[in-house]
Amino acid sequence: MSEFDLINQYFKNTKVKRDDVLLGIGDDCAMLSPPPGKTLAVSTDTLISGVHFPETTSPDDVAYKSLAVNLSDLAAMGAEPAWVSLAITLPDSNTDWLDAFMQGFNELAERFNVALIGGDTTQGSLSITVNITGFIDAQSALKRASAKVGDAIFVTGNIGDASIGLDIILNKVDTHKQFTEHYKKHCIDRLNRPQPQVLAGQLLTAFSVAAIDISDGLKADLNHICKASKVGAILNIESLPISEALLAFYNNKPDWQTILTAGDDYELCFTCSSEQVSEMQSLMKSNNIKITCVGEIISGTDVECILDNENLNFEQTGYNHF
Amino acid sequence: MSEFDLINQYFKNTKVKRDDVLLGIGDDCAMLSPPPGKTLAVSTDTLISGVHFPETTSPDDVAYKSLAVNLSDLAAMGAEPAWVSLAITLPDSNTDWLDAFMQGFNELAERFNVALIGGDTTQGSLSITVNITGFIDAQSALKRASAKVGDAIFVTGNIGDASIGLDIILNKVDTHKQFTEHYKKHCIDRLNRPQPQVLAGQLLTAFSVAAIDISDGLKADLNHICKASKVGAILNIESLPISEALLAFYNNKPDWQTILTAGDDYELCFTCSSEQVSEMQSLMKSNNIKITCVGEIISGTDVECILDNENLNFEQTGYNHF
Repeated sequence: MSEFDLINQYFKNTKVKRDDVLLGIGDDCAMLSPPPGKTLAVSTDTLISGVHFPETTSPDDVAYKSLAVNLSDLAAMGAEPAWVSLAITLPDSNTDWLDAFMQGFNELAERFNVALIGGDTTQGSLSITVNITGFIDAQSALKRASAKVGDAIFVTGNIGDASIGLDIILNKVDTHKQFTEHYKKHCIDRLNRPQPQVLAGQLLTAFSVAAIDISDGLKADLNHICKASKVGAILNIESLPISEALLAFYNNKPDWQTILTAGDDYELCFTCSSEQVSEMQSLMKSNNIKITCVGEIISGTDVECILDNENLNFEQTGYNHF
Repeated sequence: MSEFDLINQYFKNTKVKRDDVLLGIGDDCAMLSPPPGKTLAVSTDTLISGVHFPETTSPDDVAYKSLAVNLSDLAAMGAEPAWVSLAITLPDSNTDWLDAFMQGFNELAERFNVALIGGDTTQGSLSITVNITGFIDAQSALKRASAKVGDAIFVTGNIGDASIGLDIILNKVDTHKQFTEHYKKHCIDRLNRPQPQVLAGQLLTAFSVAAIDISDGLKADLNHICKASKVGAILNIESLPISEALLAFYNNKPDWQTILTAGDDYELCFTCSSEQVSEMQSLMKSNNIKITCVGEIISGTDVECILDNENLNFEQTGYNHF
């Protein structure tokens, strides 16, 4: 199958149609009409087979995750998703693989009304690069540099499940009876199909918050907020939001180092000034978004992890890409 | 070296600063302010080592070409380059390689005032994905679908040199005395450092033209214009613009099939209505842009290549990506 047949069959006629896409796939460039007065939020992420997802991951999950991690970057700025470019490198033009891949991609693209506006298909080791654009008001964007001493620190959802999912897939663990098949599936889903917190991010633009999405592990990602804001942070380990599945997996004794450093959670970590906490919590509750207060911004330069009144010291502080 | 050190050292402080980049590298997203009333032109191209460039290509040439082919897509729409995202996958974090890579990248980025606004660095087989955005007036964009029967067909610059450069690098040819070292270097440069015809594209927006950049070979790329415009075309082979180096390489007997199908020229192929040809030619001449009339748009569906009053039939019609 030629590249042009591939384009026509898989990429040109996806369901999401947007009025701001004046010219989609099929010319030298797409032509896009940004909304007047809005700022564009743009992010790029590459996922490599065997590095960012296990080689055994199904094509629909590869696609879903590739788009989800980019949507998660928009969520962390509070932006509204709009357009996406998709560069796929794959070993051969396997139509079954592409059918499944685009099914996973379109499922998520349709949910967030993101139009596929271009890309490239090339031959080589499997990797996916997504470039995503969203809209935002410049003054209300959630920047990493906005944290202030005294702010409370929150995370959406639960953390740690994806790291268990990865260990299961890589056969690195002997799981026991208490850790049911249902829990296993939950953790693998959390790894392969992260839920980008787009709505949470957009709601947070009403408040003075710093935000980041948790891709490299809560400790490392909170540290990015601290570095950008020139502050420190205390994380209260016992308040971290974890799932029943995780508790079962760890036999009620969570491995906090793994939970805090393994990454792939794709929840949001954000700060909120103490005066705004209660209003923010109400808004999140009325939108059915689970958030948990996990610590506080302090003066300093480091993220301190406190458990039983002691400071935990971890050697590794996050996933390192090299 | 960690990913964050890489970002700080190589990507964060490039020379091009633009007022429309509100937030550059270092947060979850870049924040960009598009000019009021303008349309965005967006393109993505991936270059794979051993596929789109020989594995022996120097890192500065890899970078130069990766950006050049994307600028060439903007040129083919007539857009003004603005922002670029750069996703690099490389086997290890080799700082010498990255130094040289960014030198080649920045050289071209500075020439076209393109700001590096984001990207990703990952570990794997060497490949580069560039996503580029430019500005354009929607009504004057150069679309492939605008060709009309009777239009003259032009190309900028010369074609065919890059294919010779590739053959030299791959040691596929025994070159002879007449083909001097100077000519060799010229052809290799044309392969590794294509000159995106950005100014030519922008000047052409004043006229009724269809345009495409020649990446897959003139015949295949002109065919894309024909398909999109539902017309046919005649190419007068003897009028094709070729260099002294090419004539020397082929001992004055050019291999037209290779010249027309090997690709990598990154010149523009465009059509122009007969009433506008003379005005368009004057404008190009006053801007020192070489253009050559190579044929005519006719009714039909195919690209006919005419040499000595005969129709040449080529088996292969362009580079096929799979």
